[in-house]
Amino acid sequence: MQKHYEALGKAAANYVPLSPISFLKRAETVYGDRTAFIYGEIHRTWAQVAGRCRRFADALKQHGIAAGDTVSVIVPNIPEMFELHFSVPVSGAVLNTINTRLEAETVAYILDHADTKLIIADTVFSDLLRNAFDILGRDIEVIEIVDDQADTPPGSDRTDYESFLLTGDADATWHLPDDEWQAISLNYTSGTSGRPKGVVYHHRGGYLMALGTVVTWPMTEHTVYLSIVPMFHCNGWNHPWALASIGAKIIYTRDPVPERIWDAIQHHKVTHFGGAPIVLQMLIESAKDAEEPVSPPIKVFTAGAPPPPAILQKSQAMGLDVMQVYGLTETFGHITECLWRDEWADLSADEQAQMQSMQGVGFPILEQVRVADKSTGQDVPRDGVTQGEIAVRGNPIMKGYYKDAAATDDAFKDGWFWTGDAAVMHDNTYVQIRDRLKDVIISGGENISSIEVEGVLYRHAAVQAAAIVAIPHDRWGEVPCAFIELREGHDATEAEIINFCKKHLAGFKTPKKVVFGDIPKTSTGKIQKYVLRDRASKV
Amino acid sequence: MQKHYEALGKAAANYVPLSPISFLKRAETVYGDRTAFIYGEIHRTWAQVAGRCRRFADALKQHGIAAGDTVSVIVPNIPEMFELHFSVPVSGAVLNTINTRLEAETVAYILDHADTKLIIADTVFSDLLRNAFDILGRDIEVIEIVDDQADTPPGSDRTDYESFLLTGDADATWHLPDDEWQAISLNYTSGTSGRPKGVVYHHRGGYLMALGTVVTWPMTEHTVYLSIVPMFHCNGWNHPWALASIGAKIIYTRDPVPERIWDAIQHHKVTHFGGAPIVLQMLIESAKDAEEPVSPPIKVFTAGAPPPPAILQKSQAMGLDVMQVYGLTETFGHITECLWRDEWADLSADEQAQMQSMQGVGFPILEQVRVADKSTGQDVPRDGVTQGEIAVRGNPIMKGYYKDAAATDDAFKDGWFWTGDAAVMHDNTYVQIRDRLKDVIISGGENISSIEVEGVLYRHAAVQAAAIVAIPHDRWGEVPCAFIELREGHDATEAEIINFCKKHLAGFKTPKKVVFGDIPKTSTGKIQKYVLRDRASKV
Repeated sequence: MQKHYEALGKAAANYVPLSPISFLKRAETVYGDRTAFIYGEIHRTWAQVAGRCRRFADALKQHGIAAGDTVSVIVPNIPEMFELHFSVPVSGAVLNTINTRLEAETVAYILDHADTKLIIADTVFSDLLRNAFDILGRDIEVIEIVDDQADTPPGSDRTDYESFLLTGDADATWHLPDDEWQAISLNYTSGTSGRPKGVVYHHRGGYLMALGTVVTWPMTEHTVYLSIVPMFHCNGWNHPWALASIGAKIIYTRDPVPERIWDAIQHHKVTHFGGAPIVLQMLIESAKDAEEPVSPPIKVFTAGAPPPPAILQKSQAMGLDVMQVYGLTETFGHITECLWRDEWADLSADEQAQMQSMQGVGFPILEQVRVADKSTGQDVPRDGVTQGEIAVRGNPIMKGYYKDAAATDDAFKDGWFWTGDAAVMHDNTYVQIRDRLKDVIISGGENISSIEVEGVLYRHAAVQAAAIVAIPHDRWGEVPCAFIELREGHDATEAEIINFCKKHLAGFKTPKKVVFGDIPKTSTGKIQKYVLRDRASKV
Repeated sequence: MQKHYEALGKAAANYVPLSPISFLKRAETVYGDRTAFIYGEIHRTWAQVAGRCRRFADALKQHGIAAGDTVSVIVPNIPEMFELHFSVPVSGAVLNTINTRLEAETVAYILDHADTKLIIADTVFSDLLRNAFDILGRDIEVIEIVDDQADTPPGSDRTDYESFLLTGDADATWHLPDDEWQAISLNYTSGTSGRPKGVVYHHRGGYLMALGTVVTWPMTEHTVYLSIVPMFHCNGWNHPWALASIGAKIIYTRDPVPERIWDAIQHHKVTHFGGAPIVLQMLIESAKDAEEPVSPPIKVFTAGAPPPPAILQKSQAMGLDVMQVYGLTETFGHITECLWRDEWADLSADEQAQMQSMQGVGFPILEQVRVADKSTGQDVPRDGVTQGEIAVRGNPIMKGYYKDAAATDDAFKDGWFWTGDAAVMHDNTYVQIRDRLKDVIISGGENISSIEVEGVLYRHAAVQAAAIVAIPHDRWGEVPCAFIELREGHDATEAEIINFCKKHLAGFKTPKKVVFGDIPKTSTGKIQKYVLRDRASKV
């Protein structure tokens, strides 16, 4: 490189560490008098939100929280949870959001593994924390959020969020990280098997995710965002940071049950929300038949599980402009998107929904997506048939797993992050997941995608939820077993379900056994297949 | 910082240097079959454009162009100019775009100062280059672009662009910089006084500008962009890099005269363009009175000079949704924007245009904007009256001036980039330029903003263009002198103009002298005040 160009180094004027904190700092002045939050009676402007975050961060520092300390939070989607996404990083600490639906044992494991210095929790989780501390054999300091708008237990003699906030200096200044590679948050994987792993995010990734999401959804300064995606999950797909960058209006419901979602849509003219396919399904089921579609359509990101085509089709009819996105905890949330292609306009509604059920192409800020064999490093052909593993490279990828160098090295093998998802690559470069690698069923030497079989089951009128797992079979090694939750007021027999599948699937893909009953799901709406596998081994 | 977080270092999987090259790389697959360029008969898809850029980059490397070499280009806004914004950086070289309206002497100065290794030039500039080489006393190798669609001179026996392109490997792979701080381009200031300075851009800034521009304009994948902003000016305000990130459609006209602009708007349903206020004025003058406003409105960025309120008002009536943006060569183009505020809706059209003539607030990716005294470092109060200098900090700021450490250090004094623009800060944090510092007129101890006086002159029906400069005065030190270009078919006398000003301005701000005639402008529509000052000293 030529020396005159090289001689020009970085300076304070031209190099600022990338951090989502900068977006709130800007929102404080640029969007200062605009509404940031609506939560029942609570209305706050961006200047108010930013001021509270600066002050809370100062309170944390005064309280002894140091750079790189872990602050764990167990809070539903209420305004405080958004604020903590800024105030904790502004203090220099790392935000560890804990899934609010976890059992005490796992919460105890996370608090211990994360080296938590302080917990901030909604009082609804007081018992949970007490149990977790019992398992842990020690207490950790807790700051309580008492939510007046919810039916939560009263606060104890512990410090409450609002009093703690007041201990901070109202004129405290913003504090950016010294280095954009610094940790901003710690998110534990849902741990469908074994112990959850602690995924560490960096400020750089949070900043870029924010811009990339605004660019591609797209959102504007007129966005009215309904907070549904749990902020404990990939930091709400990094949406809090994106929303600050455009000074959007955010609507909170605490508990996103269908009636509250419909209410928010009607009263606040919601333009955007994200949610798992299960949220869409609940909305579909709660919609009144005579209802007109929402207009203008609401832009929806769905992720967490591949949405069955039937759900995409019905969502569209309701006025939801759904785009499937895909990602993992390790990738800051969504990194691929099923961008609509003009040529799909000529397809039937059913074919369109099939297309939209692909995971698609990389986000603008993702560097590259491959489908390859992890052991050989070879890409699969773009034939839509050959399976490989999705591997990605780019800036919205975790720093690594907290205190787990071996898992980090394995995940980053050969310069790629290996997702563990089995997929095919279509000739238009769209990726389509066939399964979690460990969920693939191998029957008589043939791979069966459980997602494909589930997609067929969802088309049956009586099926509310469906999951396919492998059961051992003497001749074929494994065969598919279907677990089915029936829709209220509907009925079906095992034989009917199997016959329905035979009409739409190759024989070897057709379930050989059907079990009716409730299907266990994680807090994010993912079906817990490891529980079903356990059940299946006993049928 | 806690050691477990620190232990997680950067890896090939999770850290990729930020470079606009990544956007074209993604566009090649994601938007591969979509139209990227329309230039007369030329239609190219994003896959074709990307393929040509990869190949041209390889040709440059094979030709001996090494990392950090300067490649100068002197080309109008045609498809090749866009391609060079990618192919030169992909080769590892630095793109030096030369203003196509410069005289041979300055071109010679730039080629020498920039250490140019190779020139790529449209044949219309053959004579200019011959003269520049004569001044320089040596030749530099030239690759010629022969534009069949323009009335340009035929190619010589020099290598032409298309033949050169074919010497590259069609299967060449993408090459990102090793470091995002690496130089991507070298843009010389217009040099309103003295020698132009070489402003060096970095890949990181180009990447962030692209995302920030898409976020705030905003643009989407359905954007149809009309190429008017000269790409030799701040790399077309970094728009080529932004357009690749969303796979937009780009319309070229080579020469953006009003009839071609109207033609493009009608035929291609243009959604976005950028241009100096002079472009808007030309459009206003060429519009037919009976014409309906463009619908839906076209989103327009205007910059380069503060647009007179009258021009903003008339543009809006034509269906142009104009937002003023502000920046300098040193800031990668626009870094502030006059965001519309809801409370302006209640103002009169005239008051609205006054508001829109402010330079506004920082772009989402700019860290901070101040108005301060450079010598004391003190911010001016937010009173809309006290003048200071605009200073900014953030990632879209140059690496520095090429081979000019003293000027770089001065520009970056105390950790800020000092713009040299005199401005006030309003209580809503909107910045408003009063003048270039050196254009401020000091009359009897009072500062006079030449922009303010010019704004009044533009409201006079007979005034086509106006410029105010200082002339010496025995009593007051300096007084304002007006230079005026009259509108065709209109007439006015000095006394009329002065009386008109007196009605709208304080006495000391009213021009004491009026000179009628042509006003000299730079290629980017900026009035050359140094020429006028020279003339004024002789009146």
